[in-house]
Amino acid sequence: MQGCASQSGRTLALDVMSGDESPRSRIQAALRALNTFPNLHLILVGDKFFIESCLKKSSTHCTRLTLVHSSKTVPMDQKPSQALRTREGTSMWEALQLVAQGRADACVSAGNTGALMAMGSLSLKTFTGIDRPAIAGSIPSQQGSVLMLDMGANIDCTASQLHQFALMGSALVKAVKRLPNPKIGLLNIGVEENKGTQPIREASQLLRQDKRLNYIGYLEGHDIFTGQADVIVCDGFAGNVALKSGEGTARLIHKKMLDLFQKSLWRRCLAFFVLPLLREFSQSVDPVLYNGASLLGLRSTVIKSHGSANVEGFYQAICEAVKEVGTDVPGKLADSIEFATQKSPDPDAQQKD
Amino acid sequence: MQGCASQSGRTLALDVMSGDESPRSRIQAALRALNTFPNLHLILVGDKFFIESCLKKSSTHCTRLTLVHSSKTVPMDQKPSQALRTREGTSMWEALQLVAQGRADACVSAGNTGALMAMGSLSLKTFTGIDRPAIAGSIPSQQGSVLMLDMGANIDCTASQLHQFALMGSALVKAVKRLPNPKIGLLNIGVEENKGTQPIREASQLLRQDKRLNYIGYLEGHDIFTGQADVIVCDGFAGNVALKSGEGTARLIHKKMLDLFQKSLWRRCLAFFVLPLLREFSQSVDPVLYNGASLLGLRSTVIKSHGSANVEGFYQAICEAVKEVGTDVPGKLADSIEFATQKSPDPDAQQKD
Repeated sequence: MQGCASQSGRTLALDVMSGDESPRSRIQAALRALNTFPNLHLILVGDKFFIESCLKKSSTHCTRLTLVHSSKTVPMDQKPSQALRTREGTSMWEALQLVAQGRADACVSAGNTGALMAMGSLSLKTFTGIDRPAIAGSIPSQQGSVLMLDMGANIDCTASQLHQFALMGSALVKAVKRLPNPKIGLLNIGVEENKGTQPIREASQLLRQDKRLNYIGYLEGHDIFTGQADVIVCDGFAGNVALKSGEGTARLIHKKMLDLFQKSLWRRCLAFFVLPLLREFSQSVDPVLYNGASLLGLRSTVIKSHGSANVEGFYQAICEAVKEVGTDVPGKLADSIEFATQKSPDPDAQQKD
Repeated sequence: MQGCASQSGRTLALDVMSGDESPRSRIQAALRALNTFPNLHLILVGDKFFIESCLKKSSTHCTRLTLVHSSKTVPMDQKPSQALRTREGTSMWEALQLVAQGRADACVSAGNTGALMAMGSLSLKTFTGIDRPAIAGSIPSQQGSVLMLDMGANIDCTASQLHQFALMGSALVKAVKRLPNPKIGLLNIGVEENKGTQPIREASQLLRQDKRLNYIGYLEGHDIFTGQADVIVCDGFAGNVALKSGEGTARLIHKKMLDLFQKSLWRRCLAFFVLPLLREFSQSVDPVLYNGASLLGLRSTVIKSHGSANVEGFYQAICEAVKEVGTDVPGKLADSIEFATQKSPDPDAQQKD
């Protein structure tokens, strides 16, 4: 390790090499975060020569920045099993190792999701009672934002895993949003008891019987954005489809709105006044602002950025890491989850716990 | 049967008793459809006394309207198996029987989806090579509209079923939109070959090997609304989540837009000019206009309306039935699907089917 990262304050390890965009944008986001958070220390993991050339061009010189050289990256389409076999020396693995060794408090990566899940689980371990981490992210709603998990890491989930997601989501929202009793909804394709797959119907029973959870029942896709639940629980396939379908609809509406203001001279004049408002609106629900999802269930904080995140997006992911480290999300999860799962119910006893 | 439905022109059987809204709205939609289509004959299946009282209040007297009495309805939350056992005398079953007996060309119902699927399959049968019908509906896209199937009837699908959906969707779009070579996309949570569930990955191979299909590969949720595919194939769980998440996002944006124009006096003045445009826009993507999904795979046309459809919505579902009967969708599906499933071109593809 080069540089002079102080041991005081918070330290994040950033995998700057992984992602669809150029590492340059992630380095710029890192410099911006250092300006925002005066006690933050960052360890940039990646090609030393490239990073140094970027930093030379930048006017920012910061003693809170450290480099760890890594010349290898995990390809974005590599299978997790293969990524695990060839992990040594990759920027993703080295960044996670810094957390595992206690040299950083959290890791942020825009890399291959499956590989990050696999390497994160191997290096940082999951909490007792948690089978696999879930990707938990915030999305806009009529009441502010709502936490959804899983967003794409676990495509087939058992009822027990969905129950674990509910426990973790509830604990995260309690810690970060300071909501004492978050409302939990289970994503389904109808609200009747007989709707959905077998794991969903079984999970609904588990959630209803678990008195530590404020379970409000099934929600459908159109309920996600109303804010009637604080946490939406689903498998990774449904979560990913819901999230991206929402993004697709927003883009469709944006395009059609622009077309609407092109249809006549009068409308084009009106657009002069309206378009700044539309931009203000678009920014308020821009997915970039919600970038940075937690790999929830690991014993330390790992934040997954969207692969194609730009400077603003990766900056938001760093902010999410700062927030989770600052509120000690892993510690609070440990308390509530390990307590919950240790006393977890023999089905009957626990269910009524 | 009462009345005097002519045997010329097209005849639709409407299950007016099933749905969340009052039957009155479906009767009004029927009268509107009779005004629109001068050669259309409608058979209203439901409580004779109620329907007659509604018709008395209406100024429309139409010789192209017939009543079939049915005093029972299928509850909206009844399990399909139970609905099948108690089907006799329900408005849904009687409407389907009119089609099965050749007294109507198609059936329209806003009732319990699972029951309609089960009763439709029992009374009308599926095409050779089709395991179960799929719900196929149109949704707005940047290029007009796109057909998506399945939208909620089949929550767990095999690769072979997804292949069948692609064949049926392709045939429907060819028949109704007169597109010679519709582009088929398979909904997934990434575009890399290793993404998704086992049935999706296997289905992708089947679609690629089937030279009768213009398969363009995996699409993600945000690609649905771009119009890059003419047909989106997915299981019913993902399709339902995608559709409803899109609707939820549209409602969220609509609400936030209205809030945006309330923030100052100047904005409220601007709203006076802009809100009519927003209404025009909302109407152009209103889900009501896209109401009426086909139960594709049955040997006759059955159109499923949204349970809570209002007069306009149920009218649109009737229009969809008129269109599909007019272009002989079942006949064209029979030609292409039964040919396709009897002679799959590629021995490898067939073996995996």
